[in-house]
Amino acid sequence: MTRSEFERPWEELSRLAGEGSSLELETFLENLPAGDVALAMSRLPEDEQTLVASLIAPEFAADVVDQLVDVHAAELIESMDATTAAAILDVMPSNRQADLIGDLTDADAAAILDEMDPEEAADARRLSQYEDDVAGGLMVTELLKYAEHLTVGEVIEDMRQRMEEYRDFDVQYAYVCDPKGRLTGVLRLRDLLLSGDAKCIADLMIRDPESINHRATLDEVLDFFDNHHYLGVPVVDDRSRLLGVVRRNAVDYARSERQDNDFLKTQGIVSGEEIRTMPLWRRSRGRLAWLSVNILLNVMAASVIAFFQETLSAVIALAVFLPIISDMSGCSGSQAVAVSLRELSLGLVRTDELIRVWLKEVAVGMINGITLGCLIGIVALLWQGNPYLGLVVGAALCLNTMVAVSIGGLIPLVLKRLNVDPAIASGPILTTVTDMCGFFLILGIATAMLKYLVT
Amino acid sequence: MTRSEFERPWEELSRLAGEGSSLELETFLENLPAGDVALAMSRLPEDEQTLVASLIAPEFAADVVDQLVDVHAAELIESMDATTAAAILDVMPSNRQADLIGDLTDADAAAILDEMDPEEAADARRLSQYEDDVAGGLMVTELLKYAEHLTVGEVIEDMRQRMEEYRDFDVQYAYVCDPKGRLTGVLRLRDLLLSGDAKCIADLMIRDPESINHRATLDEVLDFFDNHHYLGVPVVDDRSRLLGVVRRNAVDYARSERQDNDFLKTQGIVSGEEIRTMPLWRRSRGRLAWLSVNILLNVMAASVIAFFQETLSAVIALAVFLPIISDMSGCSGSQAVAVSLRELSLGLVRTDELIRVWLKEVAVGMINGITLGCLIGIVALLWQGNPYLGLVVGAALCLNTMVAVSIGGLIPLVLKRLNVDPAIASGPILTTVTDMCGFFLILGIATAMLKYLVT
Repeated sequence: MTRSEFERPWEELSRLAGEGSSLELETFLENLPAGDVALAMSRLPEDEQTLVASLIAPEFAADVVDQLVDVHAAELIESMDATTAAAILDVMPSNRQADLIGDLTDADAAAILDEMDPEEAADARRLSQYEDDVAGGLMVTELLKYAEHLTVGEVIEDMRQRMEEYRDFDVQYAYVCDPKGRLTGVLRLRDLLLSGDAKCIADLMIRDPESINHRATLDEVLDFFDNHHYLGVPVVDDRSRLLGVVRRNAVDYARSERQDNDFLKTQGIVSGEEIRTMPLWRRSRGRLAWLSVNILLNVMAASVIAFFQETLSAVIALAVFLPIISDMSGCSGSQAVAVSLRELSLGLVRTDELIRVWLKEVAVGMINGITLGCLIGIVALLWQGNPYLGLVVGAALCLNTMVAVSIGGLIPLVLKRLNVDPAIASGPILTTVTDMCGFFLILGIATAMLKYLVT
Repeated sequence: MTRSEFERPWEELSRLAGEGSSLELETFLENLPAGDVALAMSRLPEDEQTLVASLIAPEFAADVVDQLVDVHAAELIESMDATTAAAILDVMPSNRQADLIGDLTDADAAAILDEMDPEEAADARRLSQYEDDVAGGLMVTELLKYAEHLTVGEVIEDMRQRMEEYRDFDVQYAYVCDPKGRLTGVLRLRDLLLSGDAKCIADLMIRDPESINHRATLDEVLDFFDNHHYLGVPVVDDRSRLLGVVRRNAVDYARSERQDNDFLKTQGIVSGEEIRTMPLWRRSRGRLAWLSVNILLNVMAASVIAFFQETLSAVIALAVFLPIISDMSGCSGSQAVAVSLRELSLGLVRTDELIRVWLKEVAVGMINGITLGCLIGIVALLWQGNPYLGLVVGAALCLNTMVAVSIGGLIPLVLKRLNVDPAIASGPILTTVTDMCGFFLILGIATAMLKYLVT
């Protein structure tokens, strides 16, 4: 179930594409474990990927595209001719259509939309106006909608007749609207099942159902699903007209993707996305954007050292401890940053609770600072045999640990309040401040105690 | 919907708890946005939290507990008397029961299980044997199970009669078993809806349904749901007997939690969990475990500097660049680690593809290394007016960037292969190696070119 029978499934995929047999390709892809589809496709050169996607039926191609990472999916769609791409998009759920179209260049998107089924294209155009992470961008327009005056029998008859079309709808609920298209009720499938045919759905439906506005953010939608056990929630515009349904799955997927992107951002992939199949220049540029800011900040921080060259010349052993102070303070601070980022994302802390967070962090900082200070102090003492060197180094690390955890805990809150993405900016700010402060502390204290250090 | 009407909802919660009015507490909690329940509870002292959970009805308390982070939920349950705790657990879904019981001390767990409804307790005992992240630990035992010989009419009659009990079941499918309890088919609710009463369910059910083994890992279950659009999958033992159902939601939740924990691990929270309401000593100890390993590794790396004290004394300006080399190489390497961790979690890379990853990384490393090397070289030149210093510093950073991205890309793959958690161990290994190598490069090159540096 988890591992394909092929050690290197892309070789088989490439061979089948070369043979041009649609049926064999479809069978092969269908039997490949889900995880391996993306892997195998990513190992093919771009023209072979395009060939595979063009050879198989649009339904199969849509499944393949669905399993790729977003950037990869967009690249693949862009590499195909507009007609084939349109046929694939036509069979995707509306939110995925919109996501993909939003990731294409405007020219490509327009060309593909022109080739799509007009109804699907209209939906996709409308939905791609929304950001990916608001309710309007997360919703699908495939839903069951009935007028209030219908009976249970009429609804079941409609379902029976359009069963094929509805099969892809993930049918759990049907929605009931008034003549102006405003959402007035929700029908549960199981209530339909347990009722007589003659009953009017208006009497069976749950009235004034929960709904969310099309501009609600991902956080608001997540909050909704945390609070309710529904599998989907109707999305309405400002006049309460039913626009679509956000399914729990789409929201869980969006959350998972955001977590991944945030992780990459904290590690210096500023765009939040890099896979190794992306072009070299794009990967390199994406990483350099972050590195070049960091090197400037680093030079700024290290310039503190330059002010203390005399002290360093006198006690060259201090040079060994400069990177240690810098690195350890960075570690302590990153832990505090991580806890703040997590508490923010869980809603366990508010951005104005600076004093509370600081008190919690400085307590940890004191314990850990004293422990680390003692450790490094002992190392310095044992190495150079000078207790004063141990004192200088230990005191500097102890104090700087307290500074680092304090700042680390607070930075994400302050940045979020200033509407700066804390995942991207917390790290560089933290290390710059703690480096400057750490260098100043160790070299400043050493300068003050210079006569005890030079023996 | 997202923000409570109360600026500080915990104050109102505390006030209501003090008044002891169950009804008002229930109403207040019910109207609080989901995110704010966990926030408000976490701000109360432990005895007030216990009071709140004891005052409200078990169904409400179960909802509250469900919204807390796992460690917090376990703490709250442990703080209550066994009878109240048991009443709350009794109304939770079986997988949550098992998770919570698994997080308690053995004595507490035993006391609570004794007080629980015997049937619920037996389920919880059985499920808590499983790890949280295998199919058996993710499944619920609440499901609809019918014998093959029943008719559609009989099944619908049973549903009608036991409607109340089934209301919490998230009913989408019913499962059909043979007399030995082996899973033989799945019934879709909508197929029941569209069929005649007299039909035997054996003729309506989907035969040989997909199922997963109770020991399947979270990755395997995720893979299954990636590959299928089902909302749930039956879990069977080695003899194909139906044990429970894993719902897609539970899997999505488990994935999201794992992502969060992995993020915290990469940032030095080794346990994967810290919230600021945890006791100080526990938070501090959790962080120190990681820091004390790091400080030893740091001392080891910095000891390289000690071997070059003469060079450093001669060219004290080098001391300014040591932390820069260390920090920048760490940044470049972390980017590569992050991309590998993400590709591993997406299944886009296999642990044996070391050469492929290395080629992809070293290409980025060359471009970025040369760029960063030039930048820092120019800084050194401008500052000291010595082109050779620029050359030494630039060459060292350039080479070390290549080393850092190469190692950074490979470490997670190698660790995963060795069954070491790459989220925890990649960072410290990376920085130790790149620090040692970086210090060696800059000071080694400087020593070789010493006569050009000393002017």
